[in-house]
Amino acid sequence: MIVTVTANPALDITYRVDELHVDAVNRVTAVASRAGGKGLNVARVLRCLDAEGVEGSGVPVIALGLAGGSCGEVLRADLDAAGIAHDLIQVEAETRRTVAVVDSRAGTVTLLSEPGARVSGGAWAALREQVRARLPEASVLVLSGSLPPGLPADAYAVLTMEAGRHGVPVVVDADGRALSLAVTARPEVVKPNAAELARATGLPDLADGSARLRRLGAGAVVASDGPGGLDADTPDGRWRAVPPQTLGGNPTGAGDAAVAAIALGLAKGWDWPRTLVHAAALSAAAVPAPLAGDVDLVAYRDNLTRVALQEKEPQCR
Amino acid sequence: MIVTVTANPALDITYRVDELHVDAVNRVTAVASRAGGKGLNVARVLRCLDAEGVEGSGVPVIALGLAGGSCGEVLRADLDAAGIAHDLIQVEAETRRTVAVVDSRAGTVTLLSEPGARVSGGAWAALREQVRARLPEASVLVLSGSLPPGLPADAYAVLTMEAGRHGVPVVVDADGRALSLAVTARPEVVKPNAAELARATGLPDLADGSARLRRLGAGAVVASDGPGGLDADTPDGRWRAVPPQTLGGNPTGAGDAAVAAIALGLAKGWDWPRTLVHAAALSAAAVPAPLAGDVDLVAYRDNLTRVALQEKEPQCR
Repeated sequence: MIVTVTANPALDITYRVDELHVDAVNRVTAVASRAGGKGLNVARVLRCLDAEGVEGSGVPVIALGLAGGSCGEVLRADLDAAGIAHDLIQVEAETRRTVAVVDSRAGTVTLLSEPGARVSGGAWAALREQVRARLPEASVLVLSGSLPPGLPADAYAVLTMEAGRHGVPVVVDADGRALSLAVTARPEVVKPNAAELARATGLPDLADGSARLRRLGAGAVVASDGPGGLDADTPDGRWRAVPPQTLGGNPTGAGDAAVAAIALGLAKGWDWPRTLVHAAALSAAAVPAPLAGDVDLVAYRDNLTRVALQEKEPQCR
Repeated sequence: MIVTVTANPALDITYRVDELHVDAVNRVTAVASRAGGKGLNVARVLRCLDAEGVEGSGVPVIALGLAGGSCGEVLRADLDAAGIAHDLIQVEAETRRTVAVVDSRAGTVTLLSEPGARVSGGAWAALREQVRARLPEASVLVLSGSLPPGLPADAYAVLTMEAGRHGVPVVVDADGRALSLAVTARPEVVKPNAAELARATGLPDLADGSARLRRLGAGAVVASDGPGGLDADTPDGRWRAVPPQTLGGNPTGAGDAAVAAIALGLAKGWDWPRTLVHAAALSAAAVPAPLAGDVDLVAYRDNLTRVALQEKEPQCR
């Protein structure tokens, strides 16, 4: 069982407009909304692979986290409709929204991201307890996305240590202080993107930043570099996995698909080269899918044969 | 009792951002949401005047309409919190949202308006019945805003005729075919803005357009012309009511405040000059208020002494 945690989920709303005019009234031509947030996207991708029988037996997944208010209700209903197992703690704080405005003519995507309401100290205690209760049956713990106001900055560090006591490997996909603190608790893998890695380490070079995070405690660092693919620094070696070129699409959710593949690799005991090929292929298969959390399974299978995996020289430390 | 009908209400969400960047991620710094839609704004303004004891005893108001889904629930809760009496028919169609993005630096307001989900034929029958049941106690019926998909284009015309049978005067604030059809049912007053008037009549001149709508059946036409004030063509004469200049602010809701004053004038039996001075003053008092449906009561009282009411020459017909 892969357990994902989404402390700050969102109701993701997508608006399509013919042409976005700033400082004017824009008629929305199509509305879509779904449960979002990085950990829920990871769960959605894993659920999709499991349901479609991709990668053999698949691995069941459960989504944990916090949800509240009317948006929280809509979010739960959407997870139910998608067949994603979840156990979200009911909090008083209203679940936030994100609004993505897609300009059909220009092809631009303008994202408006609500910060999320402050959650209580009780919510954090309940989330800790909930994760702890799931660890005995967990094969991997995935900690993804931002922390809402009210959660301590070391929340991911605390949960990583808890998982360590149960021998459960942890994948962290976070930013800023949440990431910096989490690495000190020795997660199996961290998956920052290039900008997050630079922010966390102050080092603009990907290889330098990854080496720094490993020295600080991360078991492996898989840095996502947009169309450039994945740059991995692991105990078994260093690789870059470059997916085939994709034309256009929506890169939101590509990182979450990579995390899903990494979690799957850990759960199934794959070696790093296999995990990285799957992660790059699945990540690229998220781009043609219109909504974050969706992957194009035909593209995924096709990409698997076309990812270029380059081993890099061992780095002097 | 003033009865307002809002067939296509919305949950109005306001996002504040430091600076809006198209095709990028924008962090929302403040979120506000409230029940919106023209008829609900009218009810909110009237409720505010009543609660504050403005204009003597005030006139009670009830908001009718359709609402559904989780946004419908939030909308009802907000009306309750504001002390606005309402009786909204529960429909399956999810109540729509509007999102106003306020750029703090540039001062722009970018509005995204959802179209609203299709309502069933049963919803229309229920709304008709609901309005009919309220007419015996109504002094004025206000029909404001767009019709959701699924309601017939002549919905306002049908409700206006129904009110006519009970001797209840009707104020219509609508656009397009809903407006064109409504005037044929002889509402007491229609309140288009200049653009709506031009669209409905094909006549760019305000006086020509108003005369046309009166010939087609409108008892009086009060056309709102932005900072230019209100242009009225009535059975008792023609006037322009010009409010004092307002600097900046949010003009959304100014038309709804004018409708509220017109409804109040009808309920209280005011003559047209008095009604128009109040309508211009209240409309201008909506501009400094940050959210549609709010009015600045201090500005309102001040504006009352400063509106310039100009009588116009009788027009040859």
